[in-house]
Amino acid sequence: MTARLIAALALAAALPLGAQDRRGRDLPAFLGPLRRVPVPDENPMTEAKVELGRKLFYDPRLSGNGALSCASCHNPALGFADGLPKGIGFNGAVLGRGSPTVLNAAYQETFFWDGRAPSLEEQAKGPIQSEKEMNNRPEKVEATLRAIPGYVKLFQEAFGGEPTLDRVAQAIASFERTVVDLDSPFDRWACGDENAMTDAQKRGFELFTGKARCMVCHSSATFADKRFHNIGLDDGDPGRFAVTQDEKDRGAFRTATVRNAAVTAPYMRNGRFKTLREVIDHYEKVSNEKEKHSNLSIFMLPLKLDEEEKKDLEAFLHALTGDKRDPRVNVVPELPR
Amino acid sequence: MTARLIAALALAAALPLGAQDRRGRDLPAFLGPLRRVPVPDENPMTEAKVELGRKLFYDPRLSGNGALSCASCHNPALGFADGLPKGIGFNGAVLGRGSPTVLNAAYQETFFWDGRAPSLEEQAKGPIQSEKEMNNRPEKVEATLRAIPGYVKLFQEAFGGEPTLDRVAQAIASFERTVVDLDSPFDRWACGDENAMTDAQKRGFELFTGKARCMVCHSSATFADKRFHNIGLDDGDPGRFAVTQDEKDRGAFRTATVRNAAVTAPYMRNGRFKTLREVIDHYEKVSNEKEKHSNLSIFMLPLKLDEEEKKDLEAFLHALTGDKRDPRVNVVPELPR
Repeated sequence: MTARLIAALALAAALPLGAQDRRGRDLPAFLGPLRRVPVPDENPMTEAKVELGRKLFYDPRLSGNGALSCASCHNPALGFADGLPKGIGFNGAVLGRGSPTVLNAAYQETFFWDGRAPSLEEQAKGPIQSEKEMNNRPEKVEATLRAIPGYVKLFQEAFGGEPTLDRVAQAIASFERTVVDLDSPFDRWACGDENAMTDAQKRGFELFTGKARCMVCHSSATFADKRFHNIGLDDGDPGRFAVTQDEKDRGAFRTATVRNAAVTAPYMRNGRFKTLREVIDHYEKVSNEKEKHSNLSIFMLPLKLDEEEKKDLEAFLHALTGDKRDPRVNVVPELPR
Repeated sequence: MTARLIAALALAAALPLGAQDRRGRDLPAFLGPLRRVPVPDENPMTEAKVELGRKLFYDPRLSGNGALSCASCHNPALGFADGLPKGIGFNGAVLGRGSPTVLNAAYQETFFWDGRAPSLEEQAKGPIQSEKEMNNRPEKVEATLRAIPGYVKLFQEAFGGEPTLDRVAQAIASFERTVVDLDSPFDRWACGDENAMTDAQKRGFELFTGKARCMVCHSSATFADKRFHNIGLDDGDPGRFAVTQDEKDRGAFRTATVRNAAVTAPYMRNGRFKTLREVIDHYEKVSNEKEKHSNLSIFMLPLKLDEEEKKDLEAFLHALTGDKRDPRVNVVPELPR
């Protein structure tokens, strides 16, 4: 309990006070500043676990050939994503979908584009074992880590036991809960700082929540509704259907967070769009050509934005780039031997 | 000149004073603390260039598929090497030799294991264009960078011109000149701190410079003589011969620095040995079986060390791990867009 308290205090210190404790403005109930990172009871955060997780996140020895780490595709240099349309994994394999940012992933309730993992812990175990990604096996991960005295010691300190894949995932998830990008211009504005957003950004927010209806799906503090929608990318990827076997989910994907969108191009799960403007234009176009798409979300409605409005909306999206990241998350740790 | 002065002062501040200005102990003339990093007249160091170089070093967009950066193989997490026997490059290609550490590379006079590049600047251009490494072409590197407004601005500030491959190399080399690991226990001891090395390490240093004769080749402040020797690895790699076409250089490779050896396993240019002890045993064995090897260096002489002496020698090698790295070199920068 003490360790958990320490971790909670550490996180509280990292958060701008206003973002946790008050809401300075009359916002829609489903939008607002990010609150404290949710931590599951089964995996309380401790400093030891976070620090171990940071090492594991950056350690290529978790991969089958020792050349790829979590940070290879979730690269802090590129907004904890990779800047590629689709991820590039083991031996240069091009993956089926793009690498989502880890920034603020801690606030999500499902993971992977099709939502097949219910927690950061479950997610972390996926790419390590995927043949096209890190291509490793649990027993080899465990054997590798148990042969590194520095890790044996760190796992003992963090978990009171030896390295296991489950503990690897718990430590990485704990680290990822510190990879949050708070205190964006929007958050500061939402907490009462009138000057934190430009006039264009404020007009963009009006459009986002009003005429353009973006917030129908991009709701909640993460600007994502934690649901699955088909937005007309039509590239044959079954998406959520693969998880539910429900035809209504065919081609539907988890709503992406709009936070940090300005630093996580390209966009959509297949990286089809290079700019935010292309994204805006896609919604307009698809909504106006509903008959050309199958299984389209009922929320795909024409935005009816003029040129100025599109610029304002894009300006608002730039107000969602966090300015206050824990500096430790970008520091490559020296790894145990 | 002013910018150069600033860079020089910044470096001076990073160096322990004693290591630059005095030698506290009567050491062999060919060994001692590292002095100021040499900077070529053609590429004076400036803060702007170092900072740009740091970004480029960490930027996977310099590679042909956008997935590999300098830091992929020269990983700060693993002593600016990769911990692998041989490097893993483009699409998982296993390279012919191991990735040497960038730590203190700034003090070398030739680069690559066969010494084919005469400067850090020339070296940097190699892996970017090598098909098995980053697999890019100069014109594509330049087109990529010129399309990123943030880089156009940074190159303008650092060089007063647009991105070119030569400037990329100059900036990366400038950054690499800050990747130095100074102030090891040996350096502190050499500067007069009697307690900086353990008794075993002091005995190991006696062996290194005396009975075991390591310093015949591992001389100079980097503990490497900048020459090329065949030490009996016998795997068919022509080594320096490929550069000189001189038979005496067949199978000869540049002497590796012993500094930071404790954090840059595995050892030898083909990663054949996992531990320093295996390295010591190799020298003993090969020197005792000269007849089994062709073109062996005349300096391969039996070490004649007993078990205690081998342990002392290994202890000394651990005294060459630097303790004072510029913290910025481990920080993943956020990249321009």
